[in-house]
Amino acid sequence: MYKNFDFKVLIEHGNARIGSLRTPHGVISTPAFIFCATKASVKSLDMRAVKDCDTQIILSNTYHLMLQPGEKTVRTLGGLHKMTGWNGPMMTDSGGYQIFSLGYGSVSEELKGKQRRRGASLIKIAENGAYFRSYIDGSLRHLTPERSMEIQRMLGADLVVVLDECTPFHTSYDYTKESTLMSMRWATRSREEFERHDDGSQALYCVIQGGIYQELRQMNCEFANDAAFFGNAIGGSLGSCKQQMYDTVQMTNSMLDKGRPVHLLGIGNVVDIFHGALLGVDTFDCVYPTRIARHGAALVKPANRDNPSKEYINLNSAHCRGNIDPIESDCPCYTCKTHSRGYLHHLLKARELLAYSLITIHNIRFMNDLMQLVRRAIANRTLERELAIWNLN
Amino acid sequence: MYKNFDFKVLIEHGNARIGSLRTPHGVISTPAFIFCATKASVKSLDMRAVKDCDTQIILSNTYHLMLQPGEKTVRTLGGLHKMTGWNGPMMTDSGGYQIFSLGYGSVSEELKGKQRRRGASLIKIAENGAYFRSYIDGSLRHLTPERSMEIQRMLGADLVVVLDECTPFHTSYDYTKESTLMSMRWATRSREEFERHDDGSQALYCVIQGGIYQELRQMNCEFANDAAFFGNAIGGSLGSCKQQMYDTVQMTNSMLDKGRPVHLLGIGNVVDIFHGALLGVDTFDCVYPTRIARHGAALVKPANRDNPSKEYINLNSAHCRGNIDPIESDCPCYTCKTHSRGYLHHLLKARELLAYSLITIHNIRFMNDLMQLVRRAIANRTLERELAIWNLN
Repeated sequence: MYKNFDFKVLIEHGNARIGSLRTPHGVISTPAFIFCATKASVKSLDMRAVKDCDTQIILSNTYHLMLQPGEKTVRTLGGLHKMTGWNGPMMTDSGGYQIFSLGYGSVSEELKGKQRRRGASLIKIAENGAYFRSYIDGSLRHLTPERSMEIQRMLGADLVVVLDECTPFHTSYDYTKESTLMSMRWATRSREEFERHDDGSQALYCVIQGGIYQELRQMNCEFANDAAFFGNAIGGSLGSCKQQMYDTVQMTNSMLDKGRPVHLLGIGNVVDIFHGALLGVDTFDCVYPTRIARHGAALVKPANRDNPSKEYINLNSAHCRGNIDPIESDCPCYTCKTHSRGYLHHLLKARELLAYSLITIHNIRFMNDLMQLVRRAIANRTLERELAIWNLN
Repeated sequence: MYKNFDFKVLIEHGNARIGSLRTPHGVISTPAFIFCATKASVKSLDMRAVKDCDTQIILSNTYHLMLQPGEKTVRTLGGLHKMTGWNGPMMTDSGGYQIFSLGYGSVSEELKGKQRRRGASLIKIAENGAYFRSYIDGSLRHLTPERSMEIQRMLGADLVVVLDECTPFHTSYDYTKESTLMSMRWATRSREEFERHDDGSQALYCVIQGGIYQELRQMNCEFANDAAFFGNAIGGSLGSCKQQMYDTVQMTNSMLDKGRPVHLLGIGNVVDIFHGALLGVDTFDCVYPTRIARHGAALVKPANRDNPSKEYINLNSAHCRGNIDPIESDCPCYTCKTHSRGYLHHLLKARELLAYSLITIHNIRFMNDLMQLVRRAIANRTLERELAIWNLN
């Protein structure tokens, strides 16, 4: 299994490491950031622009694509690579995260002490899988471990993920334990289904659940280490604050097979990336850089911040009006080489679609350059010093 | 005057002609289509993509830019070329068309026999200029011939246009005559203001008004021919049907100085382009190809039509679902080389911004290829035969 895939750790310093992840569609230098192409599109950009930003790998979401246009249509169109025109490495998630996060209600509601609610979309979680309603047409859907594997096979990404139940922070220890045990059974079913159809084109990641509970994380890590997964993804609740998140990642990572790549699901911003890399995470995915771009926020290096506590500048801000400077004068991206903050401000105010693609270009390039800096800092043993520079006051 | 500009007619056949229009930012092969960058952006595309489609020239709208971000801001940002990153030839209109078309109400209302209304935006037309309200903040604005020239100077396009009153079809002969006379006085004031500040970076077009009335068009043409305008733009009402439009263009063109380039304002679709080129029009501008793209309509050659009476296919249509063919298999654009109709259909249904840019890329490339075909057909004396092939049933 996994003969077309390979993960090599090239340099280690503490838990941080530089690696090389080989897929049938190319080699990824890790630590790497994976950009979201949720509905088979990196929002607002064509793949020439995505590639021009030195992007290594993108991720599409099984949940969204199974509902629209449907995995059969994606297969008819030649799979995600052919359909999107992205020839590099790709990942898909399992579909579980969206089903459960929509079902449980948002984290922000939870933090505000609002009642835990079941969203309209999630109908039932059973041993067999999850029943939910399509947000497109309201139809009843059933996602099982086997179906998630089948769908991901039809989507055709290089890296695929087992179906898991993703429990939020408010979940009790008992529920989390039962859920983690069920996710492990689902992981076994996912792997068996994966192996039944394995043709060498995909590699499977286990998801490590267990919430903030060390013994549950340990149980899941040992389970994963003992089975033929290619890599591991750290999922589920990572706690209620940043420090708990870092602690949970550290605790989980310490128990995982060091020879396998580690993905941190849905994380994160710049400081999270530094912490994650220090803790040994190899890949990250998050909508953050592309989503904030569509709100007019452009990521900047510490020296270019206008507010030390913010890692981005807001191009909607009135003081960008008529500003002839680029987002960052030391940035090599197309947007910074071509356009002023004043022009981007104008495009945002005029609601011109171009605003969103130009700022997205900058943010993607920024994240890719950041990951290069992280890799260089690991090699130079300066990653902690870099974190201190980049950390927010 | 106009030492950095030049217009040469290279080949003529009947009234149709191939020309070469030199500007400080490059040479345009005519007949040429000018793409709208209304608010200093070709909607949804960065200028790399616009150029990659073999675009020769773009047009921005004085009316929109004077209101947002304001001509002073555009000048602060280095003018339209620097601000937008478009290094090729550019045109701006005078601002008149939008003021008056918004003021008079839409043509469709007129055709449906609804009451002629004054829109909220147009307050008053006086000898001195037009008073109107900003659609951005409701502020009272006053556009005079001199102000239009000043604004266009600050915007900095290569080709600029005199301020005129643009009268719609329902206007009486008497009103049209008085209006045309006033537009001629405004044109003189525009030219005098233009000459006071001429630094060789811009060339001025007169606008020919006069509605459908030959003697008014003749009066305006003779006025234009006798003054030092670089080119002429045919404006105002061209009649109530296609044939009357072609007749009015032919009648107007026959009276214009053949040594100057002729622009046809706001026209048009594919068949209009053929007719215009046959009648001797050198440049066209219209939002049509970029606007219909954002509604999911992709222009196609006659052989690729799914309905002989439509020059585009509708990618929203259910029969595009799962369709592996490109928009046109014989199109060299990035979109057709990379993506299927099925993918574009999916992006439209999912409301992904990428849909709009990918279809816009196709339509721009289509129009540029069409203009090349028109130029070749003029050289080969086959333009009428081409029109017969492209004409809609």
